[in-house]
Amino acid sequence: MSGNSIGKLFTVTSFGESHGPALGCIIDGCPPGLALEPADMQHDLDRRKPGTSRFTTQRREADEVRILSGVFEGVTTGTAIGLIIDNTDQRSKDYSAIKDAFRPAHADYTYNQKYGFRDYRGGGRSSARETAMRVAAGAIAKKYLLSRCGIQVRGYLSQLGPIVAQQLDWDVVESNPFFCPDADKLAEMETFMAALIKRGDSIGARINVVASGVMPGLGEPIFDRLDADVAGAMMSINAVKGVEIGAGFAAVEQYGSEHRDLLTPEGFVGNNAGGVLGGISSGQDIMVSLALKPTSSIRQPGDSIDTSGKPIQVATHGRHDPCVGIRATPIAEAMLAIVLMDHVLRHRAQNMDVQSPTPVLPASA
Amino acid sequence: MSGNSIGKLFTVTSFGESHGPALGCIIDGCPPGLALEPADMQHDLDRRKPGTSRFTTQRREADEVRILSGVFEGVTTGTAIGLIIDNTDQRSKDYSAIKDAFRPAHADYTYNQKYGFRDYRGGGRSSARETAMRVAAGAIAKKYLLSRCGIQVRGYLSQLGPIVAQQLDWDVVESNPFFCPDADKLAEMETFMAALIKRGDSIGARINVVASGVMPGLGEPIFDRLDADVAGAMMSINAVKGVEIGAGFAAVEQYGSEHRDLLTPEGFVGNNAGGVLGGISSGQDIMVSLALKPTSSIRQPGDSIDTSGKPIQVATHGRHDPCVGIRATPIAEAMLAIVLMDHVLRHRAQNMDVQSPTPVLPASA
Amino acid sequence: MSGNSIGKLFTVTSFGESHGPALGCIIDGCPPGLALEPADMQHDLDRRKPGTSRFTTQRREADEVRILSGVFEGVTTGTAIGLIIDNTDQRSKDYSAIKDAFRPAHADYTYNQKYGFRDYRGGGRSSARETAMRVAAGAIAKKYLLSRCGIQVRGYLSQLGPIVAQQLDWDVVESNPFFCPDADKLAEMETFMAALIKRGDSIGARINVVASGVMPGLGEPIFDRLDADVAGAMMSINAVKGVEIGAGFAAVEQYGSEHRDLLTPEGFVGNNAGGVLGGISSGQDIMVSLALKPTSSIRQPGDSIDTSGKPIQVATHGRHDPCVGIRATPIAEAMLAIVLMDHVLRHRAQNMDVQSPTPVLPASA
Amino acid sequence: MSGNSIGKLFTVTSFGESHGPALGCIIDGCPPGLALEPADMQHDLDRRKPGTSRFTTQRREADEVRILSGVFEGVTTGTAIGLIIDNTDQRSKDYSAIKDAFRPAHADYTYNQKYGFRDYRGGGRSSARETAMRVAAGAIAKKYLLSRCGIQVRGYLSQLGPIVAQQLDWDVVESNPFFCPDADKLAEMETFMAALIKRGDSIGARINVVASGVMPGLGEPIFDRLDADVAGAMMSINAVKGVEIGAGFAAVEQYGSEHRDLLTPEGFVGNNAGGVLGGISSGQDIMVSLALKPTSSIRQPGDSIDTSGKPIQVATHGRHDPCVGIRATPIAEAMLAIVLMDHVLRHRAQNMDVQSPTPVLPASA
Repeated sequence: MSGNSIGKLFTVTSFGESHGPALGCIIDGCPPGLALEPADMQHDLDRRKPGTSRFTTQRREADEVRILSGVFEGVTTGTAIGLIIDNTDQRSKDYSAIKDAFRPAHADYTYNQKYGFRDYRGGGRSSARETAMRVAAGAIAKKYLLSRCGIQVRGYLSQLGPIVAQQLDWDVVESNPFFCPDADKLAEMETFMAALIKRGDSIGARINVVASGVMPGLGEPIFDRLDADVAGAMMSINAVKGVEIGAGFAAVEQYGSEHRDLLTPEGFVGNNAGGVLGGISSGQDIMVSLALKPTSSIRQPGDSIDTSGKPIQVATHGRHDPCVGIRATPIAEAMLAIVLMDHVLRHRAQNMDVQSPTPVLPASA
Repeated sequence: MSGNSIGKLFTVTSFGESHGPALGCIIDGCPPGLALEPADMQHDLDRRKPGTSRFTTQRREADEVRILSGVFEGVTTGTAIGLIIDNTDQRSKDYSAIKDAFRPAHADYTYNQKYGFRDYRGGGRSSARETAMRVAAGAIAKKYLLSRCGIQVRGYLSQLGPIVAQQLDWDVVESNPFFCPDADKLAEMETFMAALIKRGDSIGARINVVASGVMPGLGEPIFDRLDADVAGAMMSINAVKGVEIGAGFAAVEQYGSEHRDLLTPEGFVGNNAGGVLGGISSGQDIMVSLALKPTSSIRQPGDSIDTSGKPIQVATHGRHDPCVGIRATPIAEAMLAIVLMDHVLRHRAQNMDVQSPTPVLPASA
Repeated sequence: MSGNSIGKLFTVTSFGESHGPALGCIIDGCPPGLALEPADMQHDLDRRKPGTSRFTTQRREADEVRILSGVFEGVTTGTAIGLIIDNTDQRSKDYSAIKDAFRPAHADYTYNQKYGFRDYRGGGRSSARETAMRVAAGAIAKKYLLSRCGIQVRGYLSQLGPIVAQQLDWDVVESNPFFCPDADKLAEMETFMAALIKRGDSIGARINVVASGVMPGLGEPIFDRLDADVAGAMMSINAVKGVEIGAGFAAVEQYGSEHRDLLTPEGFVGNNAGGVLGGISSGQDIMVSLALKPTSSIRQPGDSIDTSGKPIQVATHGRHDPCVGIRATPIAEAMLAIVLMDHVLRHRAQNMDVQSPTPVLPASA
Repeated sequence: MSGNSIGKLFTVTSFGESHGPALGCIIDGCPPGLALEPADMQHDLDRRKPGTSRFTTQRREADEVRILSGVFEGVTTGTAIGLIIDNTDQRSKDYSAIKDAFRPAHADYTYNQKYGFRDYRGGGRSSARETAMRVAAGAIAKKYLLSRCGIQVRGYLSQLGPIVAQQLDWDVVESNPFFCPDADKLAEMETFMAALIKRGDSIGARINVVASGVMPGLGEPIFDRLDADVAGAMMSINAVKGVEIGAGFAAVEQYGSEHRDLLTPEGFVGNNAGGVLGGISSGQDIMVSLALKPTSSIRQPGDSIDTSGKPIQVATHGRHDPCVGIRATPIAEAMLAIVLMDHVLRHRAQNMDVQSPTPVLPASA
């Protein structure tokens, strides 16, 4: 029932299956006057798209986005923006092997029980292929946030299975297929992934996303807190099993005297809050961290059942990412951008005229 | 802007400040015919209410809930249920000390910047006192879920600062002020808390919530996945900094061959998924874990600024919980119940007629 | 299912039955900094309340509204505003006469079929008594619109059964119990009503509402057009059977050359549009007209059935308005104000930065 | 701001401009298992499409709809349905004549003031061309309602300017280009329209829509009443200026003893209610009537201003409908079907288990 929209004012509604003719989305509520062309979205789409390294699925998709409405003479008009991406590499393979089988840890069983049957071609709607539209919509949000509000949204892979990035060098992030910010870990990651692929297994990952330049005031208490909406948006990404804001689970063992970020006229001292206090942005960097589970589709066979409930063995061949986390960085950035964009609009709707007597603190001292 | 509602079909809208005359909420969408009286909510309200042990704030609130509408002759009518709890122990203390000061790690600064000023009495709307209404609304959801769907929602404190519960005994949970499920850890927790209170500090905690008896099919792909809505709802609770479903962050280091819960005719093997696959409940237990930060209000002084931006020192005296996690268990249960209730209604709206050819698997083998 | 809220950003959620302990509502999204006290709402509540003339129901309700949250030191804080009105004159009469009977043209039968049973005391939730909360919420919207935007919302009764007001004198409107703007028709209306009451019948009415000073730009194409939201809000008022914007049904017989309001630098010529073009306010007065059906509760007996489906005769005694239209003017004003307030916030969320090269035209030439 | 969606559970979100590459929509919440192919929508699209008689615009559009998602092996899957219609006859004409001019009674001025500029090609988003997607989405709703609920939605033109249909013969409706149900008026209408076209003017119309076979119980008090949602949906159609339910404005002059539809075991006597009591369907036919204004685009010149506010004369040449009401019947049917579909889902979400002790009355005695 109507779960394909996100955002209250900046609203993204998407459609499309892995092996249907096209994916698409409608972005409703984008302010008018924003210069927009497909190239603005293509950069992030290319960062997400498959087949760009040997560590991702070998499916080849151009992921070329077309703008069908909402842009006139190069700028947004304020009306609904229609986007479409044609699927070009849906191989006409034989799906009879999985037609009647549920792959373990996949959405096969749950879609089947919810809707009575499922589009079994490549995961149908449950395929991560739908995240392409998130990235396209997120790119619009990113452009607005950066050009109009000075907000920059960036992400990186902070952990690949057992390998933890120890440094954060933003220049390194874009220079390797993992979005890893630590140049010293790249060789290790490559070796790890090669071995993993060889034995037909998959691995989890952790992604961090940061928004800097965020004004104080974003977030709507009490249920639509900024961190609540961020958590929901992140958990809606395929394979995400955990979300942290700021100190996250480390806060469990912190003392109050240690966790609290002190305020000084020169700025906040520390950022255990992750940029959100009482559900409202503080002006500090928004810091989000995600856990992504290992890909369910692996070559190693496992127990399962068929659609009639009988026991079977399933092994998934075909083109799959051995680590869905590797391509998740642009997706997580997109979701954070969409949520922030929505909250920028929500905040100014109510509080456009507000003038606080207190000066805005620098993000960090 | 309109952030005081949660749920699309089972919708809870709340109001109320820490030191106003009353808290209240409206529950919209509750099915008719459910027997309901204040006592149905009072049990959970009493579990949450302050002053029941020496480890929580000494504020005394009866937290007696009254039903103002939506119930006739002892059963819900299907119309809006109005609930109210009078505030009885708002001490007419002098708030001049914090009127112009921002307490570190509090929502003081962010409310001030968002709205231009703030209700400084006891935290105003940002006070955790609002969670009383969540618990009241959640109790209605719990009652419906259990009596009509066989779904049971229960929680416990799994970690208090450095002390980790090693056993899960549901009978123990309700027998101690911490909601700790491990009898062997109670003495240690008491000693730890006593020392903490003595030195005026606070500590974080971890809460786990479990829903059992959940039918497969709940959750609306792709943005309103069950786990996405759960994550958002949990992160909307004061002090929550992290949410996990199933394996959570442990999934980062798991292999696909290890993470996947195999399916057998006798049930699922393992529950790394936490009961959700592709955003839809699988019939396994829904497993959620939360990180709660340490209370911000501590006696130990810390740097801050006043409303004009000048540096000050702030120490918070008065009545505060040294560990907000201690009272959070019923709140977390309530939020999970509200989300599940909403999704039961959403699911049947679209899929009431669905008949799957596949038998429903047992939750675990 | 969750139908007790109106407005997307300025959201009013209400509860309460005719014979329950209280009515209440939550207003979410009101901008902070608006001076607000009960007196701001009491004026309109008094205009709506029963028992102020012999032409309305003799039920006596003080309709005193209390503010439970969202206002601090006399101004709105930006958080949820909780309002409550105690029911004081629910007579403990014997309802056994209508308990098992469906009154013709009432909601008795439909509530019964929808929910399986109904709160039969005075109409329960379907009673027009709930409109008191609309008026209270509308008064807040009115105050904001007038003080911050220069928008004035006013209404009047333009027709009472066969008697049509021929003049519009705003001073007259508030000087008579009908809200009739034509002093020459008052005596006729009084005579008509007296005869009507005597023979136990009721009559329909027409109400007009006008908003002046509206800026161009309000309304969100294509489904949330300003006129669409106005029509929905008006039709949600008890007893309303028709809504017109501008020329309304007269447009059916108009030619294009006659209907169109020409534009001149001195302003619009005519207002067949009723202030809305393409779903967006033009700056002309918003003109709305409503048809209200005659009260269903009349003394004259009529055929009906009981809850088991058997034929019966029903005559409604007790305290009822012989013309619900008489008290409907403040309700209709409130609904228009709520819709406009919502759209002011929605418009500026998206278009705050817009600068049109075209000067704003005067409302009329 | 996000106004391009309608429906809470059966949600239609659309995009597309008159002269862009395509129109499209996403239908979210359609139950799974409904057989669906383009032909199911094409019939109504053909009824709406231009150029089928000499009384409508001569623009030629195939209006061929393609299904991009949400349907697998011929049936809906329960996931988002993506639809697209390519624009094929956007003439590359020179728009410089209207680029800087506001056509009277058009949305030109209001879009300009809201968004700062406008897509001036053929009306852009404000063009009635967007109604094609409403018709496509409505056809899906119609098919579900008829096949699963036995609800039939049908409409007709009841008045063309001064010419009022006196008979209702459903077979006649589909046999003439006006959707007029009175064969005796067809010649008169043809003559009238020919003269109108000749002198470059336009005319208003009235459309009636009827839903029969509606179960009691649809509609969500108090703001989302069935009639409120119908009124909002109808008023969102281009050119609609008035909406009536049942007796509509005739109720203004009715007495209560005359208006009320008596209940008998054999059914309701009369239908002044139009099938809705207390905002909930009664089981009687839902009766809706709409006023459509005359087309704004006429050849006769009129005063207006240009984008800089200077006075000009505007005459609209090109391809326009001399009476938008003529093609409005399928659009109005679609909107009623969409609202009913939404309310079927909403009703069963909350009240699926309800069993009323009262038998369902026949629609009419």
